[in-house]
Amino acid sequence: MTEKTLDELASLLGGRVAGNGAEVIRSVAAIDDAGPGDITFVSDKKYARLLKTTRASAVITRAKDAPEGLNLLLVEDPVEAFSRVLDIFRPAIAPPPGIDQRAFVHPKARVGKGASIQPFVYVGEGADIGDNAVLYPGAYVGADATIGEGAVLYSGATVREGCVIGKRVVLHCNAVVGSDGFGYSKEGAIYKKIPQRGIVRIGDDAEIGACSTIDRATVGETVVGRGTKIDNLVQVAHNVKIGEDAVIAAQTGIAGSTRIGSRVQFGGQVGVTGHIDVGADVMVGAKSGVINDVAPRGIVSGIPAINHSDWLKAEAVFGKLPELKKKLGELEKRLSELEEKSKG
Amino acid sequence: MTEKTLDELASLLGGRVAGNGAEVIRSVAAIDDAGPGDITFVSDKKYARLLKTTRASAVITRAKDAPEGLNLLLVEDPVEAFSRVLDIFRPAIAPPPGIDQRAFVHPKARVGKGASIQPFVYVGEGADIGDNAVLYPGAYVGADATIGEGAVLYSGATVREGCVIGKRVVLHCNAVVGSDGFGYSKEGAIYKKIPQRGIVRIGDDAEIGACSTIDRATVGETVVGRGTKIDNLVQVAHNVKIGEDAVIAAQTGIAGSTRIGSRVQFGGQVGVTGHIDVGADVMVGAKSGVINDVAPRGIVSGIPAINHSDWLKAEAVFGKLPELKKKLGELEKRLSELEEKSKG
Amino acid sequence: MTEKTLDELASLLGGRVAGNGAEVIRSVAAIDDAGPGDITFVSDKKYARLLKTTRASAVITRAKDAPEGLNLLLVEDPVEAFSRVLDIFRPAIAPPPGIDQRAFVHPKARVGKGASIQPFVYVGEGADIGDNAVLYPGAYVGADATIGEGAVLYSGATVREGCVIGKRVVLHCNAVVGSDGFGYSKEGAIYKKIPQRGIVRIGDDAEIGACSTIDRATVGETVVGRGTKIDNLVQVAHNVKIGEDAVIAAQTGIAGSTRIGSRVQFGGQVGVTGHIDVGADVMVGAKSGVINDVAPRGIVSGIPAINHSDWLKAEAVFGKLPELKKKLGELEKRLSELEEKSKG
Repeated sequence: MTEKTLDELASLLGGRVAGNGAEVIRSVAAIDDAGPGDITFVSDKKYARLLKTTRASAVITRAKDAPEGLNLLLVEDPVEAFSRVLDIFRPAIAPPPGIDQRAFVHPKARVGKGASIQPFVYVGEGADIGDNAVLYPGAYVGADATIGEGAVLYSGATVREGCVIGKRVVLHCNAVVGSDGFGYSKEGAIYKKIPQRGIVRIGDDAEIGACSTIDRATVGETVVGRGTKIDNLVQVAHNVKIGEDAVIAAQTGIAGSTRIGSRVQFGGQVGVTGHIDVGADVMVGAKSGVINDVAPRGIVSGIPAINHSDWLKAEAVFGKLPELKKKLGELEKRLSELEEKSKG
Repeated sequence: MTEKTLDELASLLGGRVAGNGAEVIRSVAAIDDAGPGDITFVSDKKYARLLKTTRASAVITRAKDAPEGLNLLLVEDPVEAFSRVLDIFRPAIAPPPGIDQRAFVHPKARVGKGASIQPFVYVGEGADIGDNAVLYPGAYVGADATIGEGAVLYSGATVREGCVIGKRVVLHCNAVVGSDGFGYSKEGAIYKKIPQRGIVRIGDDAEIGACSTIDRATVGETVVGRGTKIDNLVQVAHNVKIGEDAVIAAQTGIAGSTRIGSRVQFGGQVGVTGHIDVGADVMVGAKSGVINDVAPRGIVSGIPAINHSDWLKAEAVFGKLPELKKKLGELEKRLSELEEKSKG
Repeated sequence: MTEKTLDELASLLGGRVAGNGAEVIRSVAAIDDAGPGDITFVSDKKYARLLKTTRASAVITRAKDAPEGLNLLLVEDPVEAFSRVLDIFRPAIAPPPGIDQRAFVHPKARVGKGASIQPFVYVGEGADIGDNAVLYPGAYVGADATIGEGAVLYSGATVREGCVIGKRVVLHCNAVVGSDGFGYSKEGAIYKKIPQRGIVRIGDDAEIGACSTIDRATVGETVVGRGTKIDNLVQVAHNVKIGEDAVIAAQTGIAGSTRIGSRVQFGGQVGVTGHIDVGADVMVGAKSGVINDVAPRGIVSGIPAINHSDWLKAEAVFGKLPELKKKLGELEKRLSELEEKSKG
């Protein structure tokens, strides 16, 4: 079990101690779960009030007005510092390097140095697995697919033939990259499949959530840009292009051929129609349905999505509709009476 | 093939026969599919009318006013009785006990008595598989994870490292427990991953649907309480706590750190924002978006969710908005005329 | 690498060349990505303007007014022709026939001629795999399940016990067919599982998207009709019956026992409540919530879904609610003044 004094942690993280630097830290916990021996952190203002009641031995914070008697580790970025503390006290379990004998690696595939190919992994003909990549049990890499250096495919993650996964990309459990796009031509009432022979390209440092599905392009590429983070159960249809450093929350769906700019932030359960442009730095409220182009830096909400502040105002009236309707009826009655009177 | 007379079934189930107790039952069917030799059941009033036309040899029911000539098996709880009849005529296929030689079980894992470890199952270092647990092909149990006595992991179900699955829990096909929470800190435009080193704890008798995803906590635990039933394609984010005996329908998503009380009932495609409290016994209508705390026993609907009865009233006006708008214009015109007249 | 002149392609596809029939085609691309040596196509009017700027060596089209100097391959159905061109220049990778020694095939299962059973595939007791069926790595076929001739199960696709998959059906990666329906009886606060012992039947030529889940019936059958195309992350609950040649877009959910007619078209993220009838040829707008029966050929939108044209009109007013409310207040004020005046 790892043990560090608060002073040692301050030196490792480049922070400053306020309180007892000799305090021994043995573990990490959330602020409301923490007890003696734990270090925790406070960033969000909502949690600052928990400072008063926490039983943690030390708190990572940028605040200077902490309650008397708490040991503090003062840093500029508490979240970043906490991430590093997690790596100290709860290091990730290192995957075994090498190719497990229960894996299938095609003789014409290439596996880089230090890669971990675990049991029941499938690596197809011509596939290229980068150095230090980690393929957990049941991961699937189709023919001619490329997995970048240091990428991680958790169990059941699937990369179909020809797709290209960047460096340090993480595909969470049962994520699917390169499934067929949903494309058909119609002959009478019958839908006939259009072959989907493009690929998916995922940029470096991107992350794809558990059970998310990224369809391959019909021809050309479906693209997820560098650094983009996609949550669980998200659908990205064929030929969609998503920019860099975007964040897309769970259960969102993006229909075919739509272009999504860099640095967008989508709430959960958003839907975006096909063949439109959503500009860079756009924010979309959770559960919204975007059916028109959105200019860069736009903030939209609603079904269909409109300007967010307009939506807030309209939404505020929605609950009062019965009242408005009633008042309208009353006004009409009063008006009729007045009209009657004025005739008389 | 199993055969029972209606009298035999009545004795097994503790019910009473009205009609021919010597009638031979050979199978089970839904009321509108049933034919001679089948037993079926009626519970919901919507189905009671089907009693008049069913061709079943017998009907399990609590009703006393059944049509002339039908053989009835009268019980207090027809659904419960029907469940038991299903187990008699269509017993579940028993999984083979023991560890299949095509499975991988780490030498430092423990496998309980009577457990079924099927082909291509992975059980990591330090994992603990309870007695009589069943791991179907392709199930994955990470290092130090615990699977409770009698739990069932269907094919492709995944439990990542350290997570704790209660007794008799069922994880359906391709469900994911313990995927990383969606947590990042921002350095300029770049999202940097916050290590997710907590776990998921799932209480006894809970059930997690196919392709549902339960993210591990950053630190501490994501919790699904005892007896809680989660349908398919549901997202539960990191550090969420769900109480006991809750029911959450398909494609619902719950964002990070939200607390959901016991015995809640959520319709399908519900979204719940992060860091809020939804009280015990709350009901949320399908497709609603919950963005504020909900007091215990509340019933809410809409996006954003409001009191359900208020939503019903507002929703009823929504379709009449064009009419209201038109009437408002008319009133304004009439009012202007009257004002003109009064000036004159 | 395949090479064809435009004349050769015209002859293979039954089209007519306008321009240089000797032009050599080496590859296929989308119209805005295409360069020299590529053939592309134009169908949608939105893309016709790209004709002016494309660098493709030839364009498949039905249009006659193409810009000067472009080589055209004139056909009646450009999408169909393009599909065939894709098969010429980018043929699908043929799966290896035969049973891989790393697969598990129960001795009492039957595997048809030409079937491809790849590594880590599981085929249970009594299962029947049709001729030329393809089971990619990690596919799972439970006991007594039937996989039709020429069907394809991509990696991680799961067919639980007893389910019946038609000919040429495609199950995409990690799709789940035959998971338990979400059915419980209540004893006090406790939910007790109702055994789900029916099956799923999927008609010929249907397609089920990646990570979609089709639950087995309690008794009887959940049905997906012939030719019906289901996109990714779709939920189909127990005892649902879907007709033929329907198209259901991503992340849609259909609750238990609902009947969906043939040739319906559902947008993405639609929800349909349980125990209702949605008629043939119905269209449902994306993100709608259908809670009542819909007559054949109906077009509906909204939450809850109403007639599509009514919804469009109501929706158009929604954004103006704050304005309407303000005007209502003004009218009331003017009316009060007038009333006051008329008293005086």
